[in-house]
Amino acid sequence: MTQQQRDALDQLLRDAPLDLGGDVAEQRVVFEEMMAAIPSPADVTTSSGSLGGIPVVNVEVAGADPASVIFFLHGGAYAIGTAASSVGLASDLARRAGARLVTVDYRLAPEHPHPAAIDDAVAAYRGLLDSGLAASAIAIAGESAGAGLAAATLVALKHAGLPQPSAAVLMSPWADLTVSSESISVKAAVDPALTPKGLRRRAVDYVPAGDRTAELVSPIFADLTGLPPLLIQAGSHEILLDDATRLAARAATADVAVRLEITPGVPHVFQGFAAMLDEADAALTSAGEFLRAHLAGPRP
Amino acid sequence: MTQQQRDALDQLLRDAPLDLGGDVAEQRVVFEEMMAAIPSPADVTTSSGSLGGIPVVNVEVAGADPASVIFFLHGGAYAIGTAASSVGLASDLARRAGARLVTVDYRLAPEHPHPAAIDDAVAAYRGLLDSGLAASAIAIAGESAGAGLAAATLVALKHAGLPQPSAAVLMSPWADLTVSSESISVKAAVDPALTPKGLRRRAVDYVPAGDRTAELVSPIFADLTGLPPLLIQAGSHEILLDDATRLAARAATADVAVRLEITPGVPHVFQGFAAMLDEADAALTSAGEFLRAHLAGPRP
Repeated sequence: MTQQQRDALDQLLRDAPLDLGGDVAEQRVVFEEMMAAIPSPADVTTSSGSLGGIPVVNVEVAGADPASVIFFLHGGAYAIGTAASSVGLASDLARRAGARLVTVDYRLAPEHPHPAAIDDAVAAYRGLLDSGLAASAIAIAGESAGAGLAAATLVALKHAGLPQPSAAVLMSPWADLTVSSESISVKAAVDPALTPKGLRRRAVDYVPAGDRTAELVSPIFADLTGLPPLLIQAGSHEILLDDATRLAARAATADVAVRLEITPGVPHVFQGFAAMLDEADAALTSAGEFLRAHLAGPRP
Repeated sequence: MTQQQRDALDQLLRDAPLDLGGDVAEQRVVFEEMMAAIPSPADVTTSSGSLGGIPVVNVEVAGADPASVIFFLHGGAYAIGTAASSVGLASDLARRAGARLVTVDYRLAPEHPHPAAIDDAVAAYRGLLDSGLAASAIAIAGESAGAGLAAATLVALKHAGLPQPSAAVLMSPWADLTVSSESISVKAAVDPALTPKGLRRRAVDYVPAGDRTAELVSPIFADLTGLPPLLIQAGSHEILLDDATRLAARAATADVAVRLEITPGVPHVFQGFAAMLDEADAALTSAGEFLRAHLAGPRP
């Protein structure tokens, strides 16, 4: 956990061409090129598939228990990112959890605004249940917008009368699409990756009209009663810090089991940088242990 | 983790004669009788001592590493409780952490209002350092008012230019002496142990005049920059729930490493009931692992 590692990551992100608030078509290309530059680990096998009519990528890490599944939702402010480009971080999590994983290609804004993403997430989850898997053998996980979407999906599952998964891991959740957490301004100077303006632009793409405080848009305003145990992780150098702490508080009030882990001095979804940052490795290890403890089914 | 265990504890606390907001002289007797009824574990040795002129009880659990010390501050709303009566919970924590422990007999209100308690805590901590122990071999822990006092002590250590301990475990911290968390009203009906009225009476005893938002009174309003890693635990059935979540958020904003663990359906300082409640055992085990990970020095 060195200051040098944190400084290097901060600089890397400040220098990166990615601008989450930029032109969507351009930024999708930039993002995919960035992610494609990361070599795929040798112990990971991927295959394209479909669940409930929604395209997914199946991720298998050598030695993982095929009877437990992580249902993964990638980030990208609801406008950027793909299941394929999420495999690096997703497989890092799956390896530590000892489970297989499916990462979902939910539809993106602005072409497909809310509720397309949540409809797709629910449909894919239903497809996973229909494949014969017990909800107790499933955990949900997501990062950034995908973590907010994961929380909203849990609320939607409750509304739909579907069983909750065993647990949820939410990395740097974007849970308030009104972009009104105190950290949005307080942490703007130290956040090397996200800007308030960028988030606001993407929020308009995702919810061009309608109520951004609706509970399936911003789970921070939802009744979270009945959700499974949550692990919420964030860095202290991100403008979404308070989305994490507020979501934790909201879930706690609703009698949900909550573990919140804040890592100081690291940015948004720092878990994606395990190769260069000890804190990322530690957070992923913690998330893996959390998932192992909650995922039911026979263990190898 | 059974509903039956939680219900039994809830009923036990609702039936208990203890009233933290009652007459201090009466409630001190009630509290000591309650605690004395709990048999001392066979593997625990205690002895009276003194650190920096402050009386303490030394707690040694068989097999623990004498080179690591937990500095423990008991609860009792700043008016009730003693080091001796804290040995049950304190030794349960020390056993899981594999460390020895000192529990501090800081002066109590209303006879000794603020800043007596914090003066005593700082003096005893300084005495521990003066005994030759490195700060890295010390962790601080507390429960209820003692957890709030522990957080305030860390702030006071910073002001005094003394080194921070390696970590802090704060169980159900009372961190806001203005008694203004939302949970004070929202959770009043489900809290079997604490009442808003009781806390307000004890807050007046502790700070009869002066500012209850002062940072050494209510660490929730303090600049927490520079504090060591915090583990904050609370139950969702307590009116102090938001003291825990707010303190976590405040520390996170100040770039402190924070782990917050909320256990649903359990009361204030549920960790004291490990004999009858699986959740208590799990929380203590988690706290023990947290302390082991942070306490420096040779391990047995």
